[in-house]
Amino acid sequence: MRGEIVIKADAHATALASGEERPFSKIIYCNIGNPQQLGQKPLSFARQVEALMNYPALLEKPEAEMSGLFASDAIARAKSYIAAIPGGVGAYSNSQGVQVIRDEVADFITKRDGFKGHASNVFLTDGASPAVQMCLSSIIRDEKDAVMIPLPQYPLYSAALALFGGSPCGYYLTESTNWGLTLDSLQKAYDAGVAEGKNVRALVVINPGNPTGGCLSKDEMKNIVNFCTERGIALMADEVYQENIWAEGSAFTSFKSVAAEMGAIDAEDTTGDKSALQLASFHSVSKGFAGECGRRGGYVELVGFPADVRAQLYKFASISLCSNLVGQLATGLMVNPPQEGDASYEQYISERDGILASLKRRAAKLAEALNSMEGVSCQPPQGALYAFPQITLPPAAVAAAEEAGKAADAFYCLRLLDATGVVVVPGSGFGQEEGTFHFRTTILPSEEQIDAVIEGMGTFHKDFMAEFSG
Amino acid sequence: MRGEIVIKADAHATALASGEERPFSKIIYCNIGNPQQLGQKPLSFARQVEALMNYPALLEKPEAEMSGLFASDAIARAKSYIAAIPGGVGAYSNSQGVQVIRDEVADFITKRDGFKGHASNVFLTDGASPAVQMCLSSIIRDEKDAVMIPLPQYPLYSAALALFGGSPCGYYLTESTNWGLTLDSLQKAYDAGVAEGKNVRALVVINPGNPTGGCLSKDEMKNIVNFCTERGIALMADEVYQENIWAEGSAFTSFKSVAAEMGAIDAEDTTGDKSALQLASFHSVSKGFAGECGRRGGYVELVGFPADVRAQLYKFASISLCSNLVGQLATGLMVNPPQEGDASYEQYISERDGILASLKRRAAKLAEALNSMEGVSCQPPQGALYAFPQITLPPAAVAAAEEAGKAADAFYCLRLLDATGVVVVPGSGFGQEEGTFHFRTTILPSEEQIDAVIEGMGTFHKDFMAEFSG
Repeated sequence: MRGEIVIKADAHATALASGEERPFSKIIYCNIGNPQQLGQKPLSFARQVEALMNYPALLEKPEAEMSGLFASDAIARAKSYIAAIPGGVGAYSNSQGVQVIRDEVADFITKRDGFKGHASNVFLTDGASPAVQMCLSSIIRDEKDAVMIPLPQYPLYSAALALFGGSPCGYYLTESTNWGLTLDSLQKAYDAGVAEGKNVRALVVINPGNPTGGCLSKDEMKNIVNFCTERGIALMADEVYQENIWAEGSAFTSFKSVAAEMGAIDAEDTTGDKSALQLASFHSVSKGFAGECGRRGGYVELVGFPADVRAQLYKFASISLCSNLVGQLATGLMVNPPQEGDASYEQYISERDGILASLKRRAAKLAEALNSMEGVSCQPPQGALYAFPQITLPPAAVAAAEEAGKAADAFYCLRLLDATGVVVVPGSGFGQEEGTFHFRTTILPSEEQIDAVIEGMGTFHKDFMAEFSG
Repeated sequence: MRGEIVIKADAHATALASGEERPFSKIIYCNIGNPQQLGQKPLSFARQVEALMNYPALLEKPEAEMSGLFASDAIARAKSYIAAIPGGVGAYSNSQGVQVIRDEVADFITKRDGFKGHASNVFLTDGASPAVQMCLSSIIRDEKDAVMIPLPQYPLYSAALALFGGSPCGYYLTESTNWGLTLDSLQKAYDAGVAEGKNVRALVVINPGNPTGGCLSKDEMKNIVNFCTERGIALMADEVYQENIWAEGSAFTSFKSVAAEMGAIDAEDTTGDKSALQLASFHSVSKGFAGECGRRGGYVELVGFPADVRAQLYKFASISLCSNLVGQLATGLMVNPPQEGDASYEQYISERDGILASLKRRAAKLAEALNSMEGVSCQPPQGALYAFPQITLPPAAVAAAEEAGKAADAFYCLRLLDATGVVVVPGSGFGQEEGTFHFRTTILPSEEQIDAVIEGMGTFHKDFMAEFSG
């Protein structure tokens, strides 16, 4: 998300700011799921509570002065957090996170799944990325340890594996079935790892998918759970897009609930002794409809792990003392929003539904536009914040890219940037079937921007195809 | 900071909260430099700006409503941050940190040292701990790579080295000269590393010292710079206590300014080509007088490193996308506080001076009390937030500890906890000369608490000595 293209985009932005001419008036960053950068408004209730927590002196002001500025339930929530968190947002917390917020997360999980969540299994983290790194660091002992990752994948996984000296073992998703997952593909990847002398220790699944936008069916999820329990490997479920479901009639199903229904985990047990599956599920405040990327807040729930693994993870977390308190609060506010009858409830629902409905419209609009372009085919995003179209590039474009020393899709994306100011990420950054080319774009340009983005992409694409099909 | 003793302390706290009897009414956490947990108030100006940044809707309210709640310069600062940071605190920033805040850090360094700081050399991080880990991860290739660390050390260093698979190579500080540093000790440690076949790649120095409270003289600092340049090893300067100087007539001197005066670095140069020394200096919002531990904010300044090292660190930072924005803001507010003439200036100065004067009083009081105890000798803290007394334990106590399977100082600290509710960390957690025993206590109990802490420690110590000297 942060490579050559972004550096070039930043250079364009600097040039524009200093008055230089470009074929576009601004850079539109569709390379990264960063909603507020593109104008998404934060949720009012959460931000009111955060403001009060940051300057608790406000809570001592006369009620009359405060009532025009803060909702009564925001004031009440801030007071209850202040009472429960010694030192408030200014003090280190327990390395695993503040107890009262871990309790809120556990309740949220219980309500979501119908299976019990436990605060002792929850680690609050600076977003999902450090949580993933924490888990991988405890899984990887040396370069013979391998972790199965989807292809295409979110590059956090390959980068973290490289950092901790482990090996990735990629299983391909099936584009034609909206990035579905077959047992055959899992088995092939596993066998290849074993044949190379690797110890396959865990399997990463991203659902809803990044960069693909695909949502797994319940049968696919069951297959994954069985695959892991049969081989005794841990399941790392990246479920950060759980609120971002666009497919008609779909709802998010967590791996925890699927595994619990199958009897692969015992949700009541906290010793890890009664579960065949070891499951880590990641969530974040950065996605969903909060889009609070700058907070760096999130959590991992560990199920079926013995106490010594949790102790090891606690030790890892304690090297950095604790995750940031404002991010911890953002997590509490995400999982425990205003309830019916609360002063902020209606505003919260209206903000939430407004953002989700708009994202859904944009996802559909973008996929439709992409599919209308020559040589472009895009699986409609069933979830998450991205479209991941396949582009069939003319041989002359592939040759020109080769001459420029670039992957063909990177070449395409750089040209798109130079022509339109729109920043997207080439498929080669995620991994893709040999000989295919893709790019990932977020669905996040605002309703005001998205038509222009689509038009710009379409015109560029036509010109590009014409240039290289001659 | 987070081991057996803290777990036991938390259990005591839970027991007290549920009405159980203990010989004390509350737990006092002197195991960790966490000022706001022990009642230190946050700085008003910074918190006002943070509150406004968290809920920018406030900036659109009528001035009359806001003027009783927020200082005019806090409002102005928030507006200028909002204008400069796309998406505010809700969006990912550049992985290296927000440009405007890196500019503020660079200006601060320039003013502090009289040698130029460069924003391109500054990485904003989630506190100093992740910055240290980032640097160590780029230094360590395999277990043959070693890093020199002081003994006693802050255990972040040994833990991070273990995490990235490198080796520590400890050099002892000299307790009798207030934890001074001799070339002989450095050479001995270096030679021992080389004799074991290690590649010594960097040297860590903590100044002011943690856990020791010692401040290095300028001559000692020059020796370190020469030691590193002569051997071509990087210098990692942990300078997070730079505002916490208690020794009469002392002022903080940065390694950057010492190295620049010596000509070991060229502060104007950003290519790294003109510097004999590679220097990483760490700073944090958690210490000083802000004490904003829960923010997780800080930075590392890199001097004398080539561009490809910075690119590597950028890549590392980008795995977690960016450090949290509120922590980044806290860093900006630390390095760029209200100036003379600003509405908040007098309040800021009074808060700052009040906190520092009180910490200084408490440091002196604690050291005096410790030195008055039988068999206890404490170097007076010249800086930082700790006292690190040596305790001479009766042979019977050492034997009893051995029987309990504990280090003798850990045994002492556990007994202190059980008797008084005061949590301190045994010297064995930091490293100490064989056969000596220490503990580290913060100087942070409030002015209201500290007399009781001292009295409790004194009574416990007398009883403990009596019990085991019989």
